[in-house]
Amino acid sequence: MSHLSKLDGYFAENRDNHLAELNEFLRIPSISSLSEHKQDMQTAASWLAAAMKRVNLDNISIDETGGHPVVYADWLHAPGKPTILFYGHYDVQPVDPLNLWETPPFEPTVRDNKLFARGASDDKGQVFMHLKALEALFALDGTLPVNVKFIIEGEEEIGSPNLPQYVEKNKEKLAADLILISDTGLYAPGKPAVCYGLRGLTGIQIDVRGAKGDLHSGLYGGGVQNAIHALADILASFRDEHGTIQVEGFYDNVRPLSEEERQAYLDLNFDEEALKEEVGVKELFGEKGYSYLEQTWARPTLEVNGVFGGFSGEGIKTVLPAEAGAKITCRLVPDQDPDEIVALLKAHVEKHKPAGVEVTISEFDKGAPFITPFDHPVIQAAGRSYERVYEVPTAYTRGGGSIPIVAAFDQILQLPVVLMGFGLSSENFHAPNEHFHLENFDKGLRVLGDYLYEVSTLSL
Amino acid sequence: MSHLSKLDGYFAENRDNHLAELNEFLRIPSISSLSEHKQDMQTAASWLAAAMKRVNLDNISIDETGGHPVVYADWLHAPGKPTILFYGHYDVQPVDPLNLWETPPFEPTVRDNKLFARGASDDKGQVFMHLKALEALFALDGTLPVNVKFIIEGEEEIGSPNLPQYVEKNKEKLAADLILISDTGLYAPGKPAVCYGLRGLTGIQIDVRGAKGDLHSGLYGGGVQNAIHALADILASFRDEHGTIQVEGFYDNVRPLSEEERQAYLDLNFDEEALKEEVGVKELFGEKGYSYLEQTWARPTLEVNGVFGGFSGEGIKTVLPAEAGAKITCRLVPDQDPDEIVALLKAHVEKHKPAGVEVTISEFDKGAPFITPFDHPVIQAAGRSYERVYEVPTAYTRGGGSIPIVAAFDQILQLPVVLMGFGLSSENFHAPNEHFHLENFDKGLRVLGDYLYEVSTLSL
Repeated sequence: MSHLSKLDGYFAENRDNHLAELNEFLRIPSISSLSEHKQDMQTAASWLAAAMKRVNLDNISIDETGGHPVVYADWLHAPGKPTILFYGHYDVQPVDPLNLWETPPFEPTVRDNKLFARGASDDKGQVFMHLKALEALFALDGTLPVNVKFIIEGEEEIGSPNLPQYVEKNKEKLAADLILISDTGLYAPGKPAVCYGLRGLTGIQIDVRGAKGDLHSGLYGGGVQNAIHALADILASFRDEHGTIQVEGFYDNVRPLSEEERQAYLDLNFDEEALKEEVGVKELFGEKGYSYLEQTWARPTLEVNGVFGGFSGEGIKTVLPAEAGAKITCRLVPDQDPDEIVALLKAHVEKHKPAGVEVTISEFDKGAPFITPFDHPVIQAAGRSYERVYEVPTAYTRGGGSIPIVAAFDQILQLPVVLMGFGLSSENFHAPNEHFHLENFDKGLRVLGDYLYEVSTLSL
Repeated sequence: MSHLSKLDGYFAENRDNHLAELNEFLRIPSISSLSEHKQDMQTAASWLAAAMKRVNLDNISIDETGGHPVVYADWLHAPGKPTILFYGHYDVQPVDPLNLWETPPFEPTVRDNKLFARGASDDKGQVFMHLKALEALFALDGTLPVNVKFIIEGEEEIGSPNLPQYVEKNKEKLAADLILISDTGLYAPGKPAVCYGLRGLTGIQIDVRGAKGDLHSGLYGGGVQNAIHALADILASFRDEHGTIQVEGFYDNVRPLSEEERQAYLDLNFDEEALKEEVGVKELFGEKGYSYLEQTWARPTLEVNGVFGGFSGEGIKTVLPAEAGAKITCRLVPDQDPDEIVALLKAHVEKHKPAGVEVTISEFDKGAPFITPFDHPVIQAAGRSYERVYEVPTAYTRGGGSIPIVAAFDQILQLPVVLMGFGLSSENFHAPNEHFHLENFDKGLRVLGDYLYEVSTLSL
């Protein structure tokens, strides 16, 4: 009997119990951002610790962090075998506006084979699946084929303010061969995805000052520099007409896409027409020589996020503005370094500073990009496990956004990161009526169980 | 005995009476913008009509306009002689903040040979001077050497909404050989100025739209156009690095400066260092090949008055903005046409529209530029009258700003306009503690009396 048949049988038999247990977890309103839920955070952490105990994990602890606690556990009785570090979070987003929920957010309800509850998909449901995958292997084999460690935090929805420090402090304790995170989504319904890279982020604000105050455009116009014109000249200098960034050295450390990656993206047959419809544009726009997926997954960006200066009310005010500013962020890709990029941006602005104004630059928070090589065994193994269950080719994707905590794991623990998620972008994370397609709950449990066997065969 | 000696004697003898009479006029709180002063507007108009009667003018009428009335009068008993149309306004600005006035705005007070009151300089004091100049000539000669007409309006401080229509309707009645306005200033203390040109104004708003809503800069950044970048590209395309406007055809109808004008400006020895100090810039900025005075008086401009788009709060928001906009105005010089310039701006934006966005343009109100040729006899005569009294060379200037009603006179009545003012830019028009230097009240009366004789000798 194959692993998968055994897992099938086990999960089918225990489905009702599993859903009932997950519902207990979902009923705890563990909203990390609201202080009135502080006690609920402790309750959720304790529930998780108890659930880990039922799964037979060792060294379970609820670790205080200064914020909401981290729940730790491990099982390290597979000598010579790889160790997987599981990461997830037990905190959830607020639920406002409550009146838009068809059923209350903390009363889990199944409709149409979807489980509706805050946290069903993001991320309690997926954390729960990790535990149940282990439980299945213990039940079927009396042991696990790999070593495992868990850190489940309670502050992901508020930006993980305490986790990097916790990870740094427990670096040795958290040592592993890979980190597995199920907090992302499938590529599309029925089409699983392993996300093997995310973009990083860095940003600056540019403030331009001309005269000491706004001037009358009649009396002074033509003889004194206008702060908005100066700013526009700087902003226009950043990109060419296709969006290719003109900052000297900006692309120097960009890791080129491999032929395999480009082919993998091409095979996804991305529907650009559907995208144009979705965002409401007549034409897409971006760096020549790259497809939309390449542009948004594997190429860096420089975007003005906001601009301000002068009079923006109704009608006209003939002012010669003294001040103008812009906020700019860059999405970065491996191997760009956020600090280096900020230095390049500063040098660029200095070089392109128009006459007649002073320019100051301030920096925003930074996050590094991350990538686990596309052909890394832990990535390819994840793809195989997905394919065995979903019976279609796995999509190998990157994310255009940034998950700072993933970059922190990458940097502090220096582990390959496997983002193997089961959500769908239509499932209203962070919005009313969050839900989780139970089809992916069921399949995901099987994928995760299979993946433990897959990893056990790897030499890492 | 020369004209000037006779005028000197007359004004010296009557100074106290004149100031007492002016104070009556200044005590009327004729604030045109505030509806609670509607009755005061009528009072001020009636006071003016009575003052005109004392001067011996004919055909005095208080003409309703739909807003505050226009006061008309004339004296047309100098056959074969030129006719001067005097324009001024009896309305004043609001007085807030009242607590900043050292003495109440409607209780005229002399301190340090300056008359403090709302309207002392702008424009009741100067209107009163016109009347007293005529009164002096009647007293000295029993007649006037020229024909005169007066229109004194009550809505200048609210943009003269009804005057163009009034002028259009009374085109024949207002026919004259020149229009004389004393609502501007000296070039500097002790240095008189004839202003013979003003810039016009036209403006557009540019609205750029990309996607149908703001997008996540991680998920879409690199593949969808950013409305702010697109706008910045358009704005940057308008001017080169020296501010020279790059809109095709923009300068085609600009009347070149004559050598005489350039020399006259040069002779003013404009202090650029003092200007830099005043506005707080390290360097001036503008079109190459022109001095600061030429840039601001005789060259057109294109200024962004305001820009907006995306996130402008504190910190960072990684949005890919769908919308951005800018407000733009151009100061125009003869013989640019506001409608033609708007058409050129539109064509320019169309030509420079970046990919991936839609751009819409809306128009603001327009005002034509005006110029009375520098060497026109009425301009040169004004210069001579100033010089006779102030005993220094007159400055021949233009104004960088726009006075829409002047352009309207120019266009409707097609008269040479003589801007012959006696204020100083330090006199707080529109601000608390407005005042008028009585030195210029005294000298101005003599200049105006002299000018009537000057004009009587011209063949117009």
